[in-house]
Amino acid sequence: MQTWDRFKAIQKKLKAYSLALNIASWDSNTEAPKKCFPYRAEMLSIISGESFALETSPEYVGAVEAMYEARENLSAQDREEVIQAKRTLDKILKIPKDVYTDYVKLLNMSQRIWEDAKENDDYDLFKPYLEKIVATQKQLVTYRHDTSDPYNVLLDDFEAGMSMEKYDAFFDAIKTELVPFVKEVLAARPNKKPAFIEAFYDKADQKRFVEKLMAIFQYDTDRGLLKESVHPFTWNTHSQDVRFTVRYLENFVFSSIFAAIHELGHALYEMNIAEALDTTNLNTGTSMGIHESQSRFYENIIGRDKAFWSKHYQALQDMFPKQLSDVSLDDFYLGINWVEESCIRVEADELTYPLHILIRYEMERAIFNDGIDVETLPKLWNHKMKTYLNIEPSTASEGILQDVHWSGGAFGYFPTYALGSAYAAQFYDTMQKDLDFTALLEAGDLKPINDWLKDKIHQFGKLKSPEQLLLDVTGEPFNPQYYIRYLKEKYRALYLKG
Amino acid sequence: MQTWDRFKAIQKKLKAYSLALNIASWDSNTEAPKKCFPYRAEMLSIISGESFALETSPEYVGAVEAMYEARENLSAQDREEVIQAKRTLDKILKIPKDVYTDYVKLLNMSQRIWEDAKENDDYDLFKPYLEKIVATQKQLVTYRHDTSDPYNVLLDDFEAGMSMEKYDAFFDAIKTELVPFVKEVLAARPNKKPAFIEAFYDKADQKRFVEKLMAIFQYDTDRGLLKESVHPFTWNTHSQDVRFTVRYLENFVFSSIFAAIHELGHALYEMNIAEALDTTNLNTGTSMGIHESQSRFYENIIGRDKAFWSKHYQALQDMFPKQLSDVSLDDFYLGINWVEESCIRVEADELTYPLHILIRYEMERAIFNDGIDVETLPKLWNHKMKTYLNIEPSTASEGILQDVHWSGGAFGYFPTYALGSAYAAQFYDTMQKDLDFTALLEAGDLKPINDWLKDKIHQFGKLKSPEQLLLDVTGEPFNPQYYIRYLKEKYRALYLKG
Repeated sequence: MQTWDRFKAIQKKLKAYSLALNIASWDSNTEAPKKCFPYRAEMLSIISGESFALETSPEYVGAVEAMYEARENLSAQDREEVIQAKRTLDKILKIPKDVYTDYVKLLNMSQRIWEDAKENDDYDLFKPYLEKIVATQKQLVTYRHDTSDPYNVLLDDFEAGMSMEKYDAFFDAIKTELVPFVKEVLAARPNKKPAFIEAFYDKADQKRFVEKLMAIFQYDTDRGLLKESVHPFTWNTHSQDVRFTVRYLENFVFSSIFAAIHELGHALYEMNIAEALDTTNLNTGTSMGIHESQSRFYENIIGRDKAFWSKHYQALQDMFPKQLSDVSLDDFYLGINWVEESCIRVEADELTYPLHILIRYEMERAIFNDGIDVETLPKLWNHKMKTYLNIEPSTASEGILQDVHWSGGAFGYFPTYALGSAYAAQFYDTMQKDLDFTALLEAGDLKPINDWLKDKIHQFGKLKSPEQLLLDVTGEPFNPQYYIRYLKEKYRALYLKG
Repeated sequence: MQTWDRFKAIQKKLKAYSLALNIASWDSNTEAPKKCFPYRAEMLSIISGESFALETSPEYVGAVEAMYEARENLSAQDREEVIQAKRTLDKILKIPKDVYTDYVKLLNMSQRIWEDAKENDDYDLFKPYLEKIVATQKQLVTYRHDTSDPYNVLLDDFEAGMSMEKYDAFFDAIKTELVPFVKEVLAARPNKKPAFIEAFYDKADQKRFVEKLMAIFQYDTDRGLLKESVHPFTWNTHSQDVRFTVRYLENFVFSSIFAAIHELGHALYEMNIAEALDTTNLNTGTSMGIHESQSRFYENIIGRDKAFWSKHYQALQDMFPKQLSDVSLDDFYLGINWVEESCIRVEADELTYPLHILIRYEMERAIFNDGIDVETLPKLWNHKMKTYLNIEPSTASEGILQDVHWSGGAFGYFPTYALGSAYAAQFYDTMQKDLDFTALLEAGDLKPINDWLKDKIHQFGKLKSPEQLLLDVTGEPFNPQYYIRYLKEKYRALYLKG
């Protein structure tokens, strides 16, 4: 089986480059001193260049193509490896090198311009770059596919198997069912936001509580660590090294608590992937959507459940007696599930969050498929905000300029966030048939829940596609109704009961 | 000048690999979770393998050889670059690739094992690795040289131009002049160690004082950072990224203070190298000995001088009033220069320190030239401690397992520490002719001293050999008598005057 060995040998080298670049990126994002970057960027681009040359070398491409032709003779795992490799190659091989290089340069420039534009609240500054990125993205798709729907290709890039047709159905359900429901909740909600939410919480104490959460969620500190960074993220190279970061806002303690639980969801997924997959290209989460389903399962379904806090609220009160000793568990539970109209996606609550994504999905769809002019985008953005969330951003920075994604060319990424929440609700429905979820949370025993997720989802890494996972775990294909029902039940009980 | 361009192009790639490996090593030594190492070691060995293959490729070797032949036509800087490249090639060319790759893997693993062994006071755990490292080192030398004295080769690796013959002379001076002098000092020394030395000093406050020291010594935090690790070290990739670590012992505050000043000496050396050298292979300190001369100059000649503390002692007292408000400057000065028999090299005082190195030099000499069995090493170690320092370690962790060096294959390294102190004393003698050293310390103005060292030593990186530097700066070759005289004068005044 010489071709297979060649494939694996080169793959191993690619994994080595990737590990080295990954470690450098962890360093860059958490502690590297600011003057090191020009030299570092130049040197690391040499390493990525080597890696790219190897991945597109006739030797590797030939091996992948040959194995792909003969894939029916391979074991399920080997076949999946080859399919993954082929999928990656298809994305990069057909794009002329200079087009790609120009695009990377454009993105580098755009991200800087976007930062300036956001800081100076100046959409016009970013507009020409956005226009160019969209045009290039459309062009890049044409190298790869003969399609009149480039957005479909991008959606599939971020979540294999997804398309406008499927997302339309999903977001239609959100639009018809959640938009009016949110209005109902907001109308019924008490006016005054509880003061404890934005009280002062000492940073060092927040960190101590996050460390408590790591223990509660059974995060293995022999295989990872917690650090601080401007934007929380999870970082992993293989199952034995999965780290995450949070940030500590002293006037918003929920930021570190729920970012931590969110990142713990991502991290546990990566840590629980079968160690045997570490020598393959399957040793990471299967898709953006499934990854997000795990982070949101932990953050929202566990972390914002009353049963969870019935066990752990005392510890939080003990850590912050001044802020919380007068706050009852019921009031705290309402506080961590406080619903409000807000402009900024990353600060949105669980219930309004999918509406933020709905807006972005419709915007991207309009940009790519209806060829809407970039000139009119801010107006359209604000109009949708008003329609769905009854709030209008007063600046572009709080509106269309708020997210980094588009400046990095990541169109088709946003929808996976909402999809992840919906997957999570569907998994949750099945889990409740196997486990007494509430009793476990009340007992503070997360092991059966972790084990269930590991057993049904985590261990497989990329061995199973998102569609396959949904089917295997829940017995049916993706069905957004679980999500709608979960949200309605939870928030009806919280806000509409009386 | 096609050959030159080829040389520089490949060198740039080598520097990229080296940067990536360096960043990984910083991570490994400061925070990487313990279970990540087997996979990481395997992957990084692939990168070193690639780098090794490139450095030993006919294309690069041919370019270096050709430039070396024509070196008389090159500028001084280019010539030195080629000489360095040739020197490195001479060291590695004859080593088979798989032997080298296996060795790198062995070292990655050994360092982890050593940490465990030290923590668990278990020499037997480390023994087989040590044995394998020594055997491999000997084997590696035989690939390079037809010699019956492998240790000579290793000594020259760490300090170009040094040999057993020269070190024997140096350590003979230490043995004949310092060993009896130390006994004299110890006999005259008051019995009771001042209590403030080992009082409790809060770790967070120690860190704050180390940060103060960084400012005092004009360390640029835009080009580096401070972190914590088991064994303090300085790390650098180029002049714009030079970091260092210390550790905080709550019952021995001098550990963090003087480790910090020591590492600051290493770090300032690297930061002060001309930025123009960053694109060459000359952008690091010229030798271990010269590097150590700078760290020890800062640590001992500045950091343990009374004039230095006449300026900064108040700040330390303010940070630790409970421990120090009743301690006079004179008593503090005696405390930071307290001489005693001790087991741990890195905690040793300035005067007994060279005796710790004498022991290691003799141990390594015995291991490599007398072929002594690893089984008997702990006994031999303890015997020498007893003879020279009149103290015997009660555990392996306090004896033979205390240092990281051997687990990293660094035999021949230790002697450069004592050599560095001796170089430093020789530089100091010259500096005092140019600057009013004491007045500057009393004024807290380290800039002229930093500038003098930058101007005479730091900026040149590897452009000048150790021998050349000594000659250019002090007007004479290395002369150990400056060191002996410096120590005797200082410690006679402190302990033998009355």
